[in-house]
Amino acid sequence: MHNSFPDSGTGTNKKLYEIVADSIVTLIDQGVYAAGQRVPSLRRVTRDYGVSLSTSMEAFRLLEDWGKIEGRPQSGFYVKNVPHNVDPTPQKYSRELMPTNVNINTLALRLLADVGDRRSVQFGSAVPDPAILPLAKLRSALSSVIREDDGDIASYDMAPGCLPLRIQIAKRSLKCGCAFSPQDIVTTNGAQEAVSLCLRAVCVPGDTVAVESPMFYGILQIIEVHGLNAIEVPSHPRYGIDLMVLAQVIQKHQIAACIAITNFSNPSGGCVPTESKRQLVDLLSGHDIPLIEDDVYGDLAHNTERPLVAKAFDTCGNVLLCSSFSKTIAPGLRVGWCVPGKYLDEVVRQKVVANLSGPMITQLGVAAFLSSSGYDKHLRSTRRIYAERVHAMAAHLLTCFPPGTKVSRPSGGYI
Amino acid sequence: MHNSFPDSGTGTNKKLYEIVADSIVTLIDQGVYAAGQRVPSLRRVTRDYGVSLSTSMEAFRLLEDWGKIEGRPQSGFYVKNVPHNVDPTPQKYSRELMPTNVNINTLALRLLADVGDRRSVQFGSAVPDPAILPLAKLRSALSSVIREDDGDIASYDMAPGCLPLRIQIAKRSLKCGCAFSPQDIVTTNGAQEAVSLCLRAVCVPGDTVAVESPMFYGILQIIEVHGLNAIEVPSHPRYGIDLMVLAQVIQKHQIAACIAITNFSNPSGGCVPTESKRQLVDLLSGHDIPLIEDDVYGDLAHNTERPLVAKAFDTCGNVLLCSSFSKTIAPGLRVGWCVPGKYLDEVVRQKVVANLSGPMITQLGVAAFLSSSGYDKHLRSTRRIYAERVHAMAAHLLTCFPPGTKVSRPSGGYI
Repeated sequence: MHNSFPDSGTGTNKKLYEIVADSIVTLIDQGVYAAGQRVPSLRRVTRDYGVSLSTSMEAFRLLEDWGKIEGRPQSGFYVKNVPHNVDPTPQKYSRELMPTNVNINTLALRLLADVGDRRSVQFGSAVPDPAILPLAKLRSALSSVIREDDGDIASYDMAPGCLPLRIQIAKRSLKCGCAFSPQDIVTTNGAQEAVSLCLRAVCVPGDTVAVESPMFYGILQIIEVHGLNAIEVPSHPRYGIDLMVLAQVIQKHQIAACIAITNFSNPSGGCVPTESKRQLVDLLSGHDIPLIEDDVYGDLAHNTERPLVAKAFDTCGNVLLCSSFSKTIAPGLRVGWCVPGKYLDEVVRQKVVANLSGPMITQLGVAAFLSSSGYDKHLRSTRRIYAERVHAMAAHLLTCFPPGTKVSRPSGGYI
Repeated sequence: MHNSFPDSGTGTNKKLYEIVADSIVTLIDQGVYAAGQRVPSLRRVTRDYGVSLSTSMEAFRLLEDWGKIEGRPQSGFYVKNVPHNVDPTPQKYSRELMPTNVNINTLALRLLADVGDRRSVQFGSAVPDPAILPLAKLRSALSSVIREDDGDIASYDMAPGCLPLRIQIAKRSLKCGCAFSPQDIVTTNGAQEAVSLCLRAVCVPGDTVAVESPMFYGILQIIEVHGLNAIEVPSHPRYGIDLMVLAQVIQKHQIAACIAITNFSNPSGGCVPTESKRQLVDLLSGHDIPLIEDDVYGDLAHNTERPLVAKAFDTCGNVLLCSSFSKTIAPGLRVGWCVPGKYLDEVVRQKVVANLSGPMITQLGVAAFLSSSGYDKHLRSTRRIYAERVHAMAAHLLTCFPPGTKVSRPSGGYI
């Protein structure tokens, strides 16, 4: 049974609890435990697999992260009610990994031109449903900012940017496993700008960056425009970027930076397990290769707690964490941020040169919204709605595509 | 007398009317015509200099542009009341012109750190006086935008950006000698971003750009961060970038772009005469070298009509005009724009990759303000106030610095 876990990418690298979790996934996928049915208890798994109780608990946590099972208070763990032939394991890359030029901008711009078209289902651009956004509360927060303004909204607010917003972001950082101070944070015009500034801060044209593959096209566009080469490292929806392959790539090539979307990635929807985040940070820090971590979907975990960021394991300022409120509050406000670690000064320099600062009114509006209890309440309902929709979409897709089509089941975000 | 005009930079290149104007300036500077005194009539100048009436009229227009004389209805032209030893002709460059690396960011960031300090006079950063900004009307425009919003402020608004704003900018383009359509315009986060995107659109790292010297440090920062070399072409507060030197530079070096602030430049305060703008555009277009024109101060002419932009003479899309509302409405809104001519697609691409778009609320707010009659009314009072202040500052500086200190007299802006 221990050999039967699904194609895992980095087999020999697996922890015991991952092997156990994989094994249970196989049983679920084979229909041994059907949707809605109770899975064996922790005690039973401990006994059957001959592992410690803490290993079993870790395995169950992973199964929850993957959206395979859900805990019910006082009752145990149950298989989540998802379509039977849904499968989160797309085909792996097998070709040799070499740095390549990136050429995606023409295609991406054509795709973005359709963003406003309400007749199309937006598979292309990750635009949140406006009906879910907290528009009334936002308008009210923005109106207060204007009413109470004593000149702030008219003044230059040089990078690192709006202090009230940075304070709110710092306050929330405990939730993702960090403890930022406002001085660690640079505000940006969305996460796209955050990633762009961070990449410019740590790379010069001609450098090679390691990117998890598949990767969000917006980041590939930055790589192309900045004249960088990309080397694609396969990423698995369950385990994240393949650490063994990444280690090999680092041995063979001069890598200037690594980029990954760690939580509920666009396009895979996958979430990197906590332990893999730690390993990713350790591997890169050991080679002094900065990690640019994009976490725009992290607040949108469906049923579990908000996952940690890889930055939580950063002990030497090597991780540049990027995020925004575009996926949770409103894309049109263009409010994002980054915590660039030891690259802070260089990112500030890039921001000042790019556009000095963002507008104050939008940043103050988001800060006002965050300082109320509205954001957490909004997140709770948003997460529930996206969980239902992702589930419904997976089921619907299977009715539209030929038998044998596989659909993954993200445990967060809306990708 | 024709040989007596002041150090003009490009002597042999001068038009007849410029020679006449220079000669009259010399007489004023020597005290032959004192402040407040009537200068010789058009008819008298025509006769004395042996030139045509239209040449004399052109010379008088130039003298008005330079702020040397002012017309009084039904009465003739008078020497403007400026301190006697004010002189707009700083020392010329004499060293050989070679491309150099730019290294200004450390100094510039130190300077920008003092922007919020109300104890200092801001010689460093060109921050407009908040007391002059139309804050009450702006707040009211922004409040209306929020009140009437049906979701726009929450949505992505991909480059080229907010259509209502582009329509307003297009409508106003006649005033600077152009006739833009909204499709020609890309909105940006301030003029700093406009120049940055345009420069990235036409240059690759390692390229050499010709910049007028002295040049606004913010643009030098962009050049440095983008890995470009700069070759400084001397610029005269009265005549603008030295066209003869520029022509020589183009012969000797591979120039990828030229950058100039054509109206009421930061730092010189100078305004390029209309004819020189035409010549500049023709020279560069003849060599297919894009001109990046920064016109952030153009709306702030003190007493004369708003000057034309060089873009007005662009027949082949070779000029990338950049501007913003930071100097006239509010820096903190970060609303700027550019008209990139034949480089439009590439600038849109750069904008999307940098940060997708600007926020809608600020752009819609500026559009609402522009569509009212408020902007022109605001400009009229702003121009009058800056004219008085520039005059007072010039007089005050002369009392603070040693005798012999020269102070220029910009005819627009607040530099």
